[in-house]
Amino acid sequence: MANKRTTSADSAWAQAGIDLHLDLRGSGLRAGLGEALREAVRSGRLAPGTRLPSSRTLAEDLGIARSTVTECYSALVEEGWLVARHGSGTHVAHRAEAARAPERSAAPPRRSPHELEPGAADYAEFPRAVWLSAARRALTAAPHSAFGYGDPLGRMELRTALADYLSRVRGVYADPARIVITSGFHHGLGILARALRGQGVGTIAVEAYGLDIYRDVLSDDGMSIPALEIDEGGAQVDALSALEPGSAALLTPAHQFPLGFALSAERRHALLDWARRTGGVVLEDDYDGEFRYDRRPVGALQGLDPDHVVYFGTASKSVAPALRLAWVVVPEHLLPAVERAKGRVDTVSVLDQLIFTDFVTSGAFDRHVRGRRHSYRARREQLVSALDAQAPEVRVVGMPAGLQAVLQLPEGTEASILEAAARRGLVVSGLSEFRHPDAAGSPWGSGLVANFSSVSDSAWPAALQSLVAAVS
Amino acid sequence: MANKRTTSADSAWAQAGIDLHLDLRGSGLRAGLGEALREAVRSGRLAPGTRLPSSRTLAEDLGIARSTVTECYSALVEEGWLVARHGSGTHVAHRAEAARAPERSAAPPRRSPHELEPGAADYAEFPRAVWLSAARRALTAAPHSAFGYGDPLGRMELRTALADYLSRVRGVYADPARIVITSGFHHGLGILARALRGQGVGTIAVEAYGLDIYRDVLSDDGMSIPALEIDEGGAQVDALSALEPGSAALLTPAHQFPLGFALSAERRHALLDWARRTGGVVLEDDYDGEFRYDRRPVGALQGLDPDHVVYFGTASKSVAPALRLAWVVVPEHLLPAVERAKGRVDTVSVLDQLIFTDFVTSGAFDRHVRGRRHSYRARREQLVSALDAQAPEVRVVGMPAGLQAVLQLPEGTEASILEAAARRGLVVSGLSEFRHPDAAGSPWGSGLVANFSSVSDSAWPAALQSLVAAVS
Repeated sequence: MANKRTTSADSAWAQAGIDLHLDLRGSGLRAGLGEALREAVRSGRLAPGTRLPSSRTLAEDLGIARSTVTECYSALVEEGWLVARHGSGTHVAHRAEAARAPERSAAPPRRSPHELEPGAADYAEFPRAVWLSAARRALTAAPHSAFGYGDPLGRMELRTALADYLSRVRGVYADPARIVITSGFHHGLGILARALRGQGVGTIAVEAYGLDIYRDVLSDDGMSIPALEIDEGGAQVDALSALEPGSAALLTPAHQFPLGFALSAERRHALLDWARRTGGVVLEDDYDGEFRYDRRPVGALQGLDPDHVVYFGTASKSVAPALRLAWVVVPEHLLPAVERAKGRVDTVSVLDQLIFTDFVTSGAFDRHVRGRRHSYRARREQLVSALDAQAPEVRVVGMPAGLQAVLQLPEGTEASILEAAARRGLVVSGLSEFRHPDAAGSPWGSGLVANFSSVSDSAWPAALQSLVAAVS
Repeated sequence: MANKRTTSADSAWAQAGIDLHLDLRGSGLRAGLGEALREAVRSGRLAPGTRLPSSRTLAEDLGIARSTVTECYSALVEEGWLVARHGSGTHVAHRAEAARAPERSAAPPRRSPHELEPGAADYAEFPRAVWLSAARRALTAAPHSAFGYGDPLGRMELRTALADYLSRVRGVYADPARIVITSGFHHGLGILARALRGQGVGTIAVEAYGLDIYRDVLSDDGMSIPALEIDEGGAQVDALSALEPGSAALLTPAHQFPLGFALSAERRHALLDWARRTGGVVLEDDYDGEFRYDRRPVGALQGLDPDHVVYFGTASKSVAPALRLAWVVVPEHLLPAVERAKGRVDTVSVLDQLIFTDFVTSGAFDRHVRGRRHSYRARREQLVSALDAQAPEVRVVGMPAGLQAVLQLPEGTEASILEAAARRGLVVSGLSEFRHPDAAGSPWGSGLVANFSSVSDSAWPAALQSLVAAVS
């Protein structure tokens, strides 16, 4: 434990006008003395140029061995805190003004733009015990080499497990060699944007409604991001024909975010026709493809044309954002550019990749998704029923699917209803927050985006009640 | 389980000249039929335009309910695989040429430029059991909210734990609010490069020896990266005066990588004087600061001047690269630029951050580092003794510290000795691989960089023997 004692220094210190209180702490006398001297210099109690007492004097004062003091002085000389001048002893080095004492500020909690939840965020359903079991198996079975730097594209066993899963569940045509593991969709989108820019792509069309952070990751990189209007058939992809050849388009075909429509069969064809005709690239954001409540979900667009569609999936919606795990299935012709854009050093926790592999291959992932689907489906149905009964003028837009619902409100009421929600302690977002800046004339007016998946089962009834009350 | 059976289709198929074998698999008949049809289209066995049998015919053929077939057809129409033409039945959609069957290529293992190890990479000392205990505690104790999107700068409890650790062990002057968690040094360096470029910095001097991936992360971003020559006092920082004001310098002051010298006290002062005089920024890469074998390590430069020094630390050397965990202590005036450069979405596994926090605060990190230090110290001493005895013309350069040693070889022998090492199955690197392209005239000629930390205790004696034999 720390040697904690306070001492006054002797005449040498007094000569410098200093009554130095050395607060010896840390493990070991030598370390404690060093820390005390550094702190005294830092705080300005020992001014630059001050001559320190001789090692003999200080040792006697403190009742410690002289060698302890000389070792400490020479270490601080080496670090740059002190200077030893031949014949004139040891002095405090001329440093910049004393640094401010660090304020142990608790940084204010940041609200992520993803947290669209009514009430406090609550990820109560994270499968802690199952995850820990997977961790035990994965960490026990991993070869030693797994603890080194990983493959920049991701662990091959995870990419193989995902190829099987995506083919089975989403109809994705996936070769493990073309799957890239990323730390979230945002990370993967940034990599693709760099890769496409490197191929000369200057335009990526986006949907008129979506998250600004994704638009930003494209436009920050210098891309032009024209908006595609949304109607009940999904994005109006015919507008793509006006773009220069070799452009790209970022879409949420299975379940438009946040409005909740599926891209119609005609538009799926038109979109792929555009891509083939013009050398275009479709970026398919399949963020919640596992969550359809009325029927088997529409398969991924990528399966229809793996050479023109980049598929993006994520564990953020199906398990938890804390994992920072997502995946991209890349067309073969884009793989070299994506590899260059991702760089030579992987950025995704290898341990999490190993554990998630076990989670997928053991069937725990399927079971978890099934359980969540069951729960979210019930919540969405309760939301629709409650609105039907108590706020019939509020329409729930989109398909029975996903993790959030858009409540379409009477025109011009969004701001006042958001205020009413806030008074009830609800954190929901206004639909207009998701609107592309160029889509001001969009026909989707006032609305709330309510994430019915982000509170615990126990908190849900109260959150639902507040939400319905706020819009009634 | 899968319904696995093969059937020949009826006259409708025969008309189209196809004898279709549907391989029904997947869970459930409906899913199995869908997958079989998709695969038949994909592989080209069902050509575009082919008319499918009526749902009644196919249902009879397969001995399944007609509704199963109609549901399946309409799902595939919605996905875009089939088209339904009013009055003329269901046809295969006109797709691009059939995609190639995915080759389940096992991607060749990539050698990371970090793996400088003699023999196969072996991270046998990763503390699996201790890590799993920490995981159990951390995941049990974490609030539900921890499973959401994290603070983009990192979990505050980890930043607080690191502030204490870095202050105690490395003399770093750390406020948790100014610590940023990254997924490795490479990630953090890229963020700082972008932040500095945003501040108008166009030049970051680097050491004449170092890893090319770090030079690349700077120069890819358009930075000029002049080289600072290295001698036994570390980097020759006087050359910084020739740079334009407001430049930066990336250094490994505690233990130059890979040559192994400490930056001398005079140069520490000269470096900080340069930074203060010219508004320069020092990037201190403290990659192996915990590993000094002859004495207490020289404290971090950052402690002397937290306003001009950005401190970088990592768990890659002290625990394992697989964690993808590192940290940057940022001067207050740079924090807004770094926050902008890091973006609004965190990229580091929150689970690993929670577990590592427990690992640090429980004392397991200190114990692990102490154990590793003990082992690496012994290995380095064995290496020096063995060379003294068997290859006296080979000098081990640098201080007794760190995870690798540079063996200085007789001039002009590097290539032939690397070949000799490769014949013995040793993966070591030549010193010239680390040389900055502009430092061709550097006085450090032939050498090997041998990472004595990257084999297991049991593999070490044989690796040592091969290494010494290769240079003898």
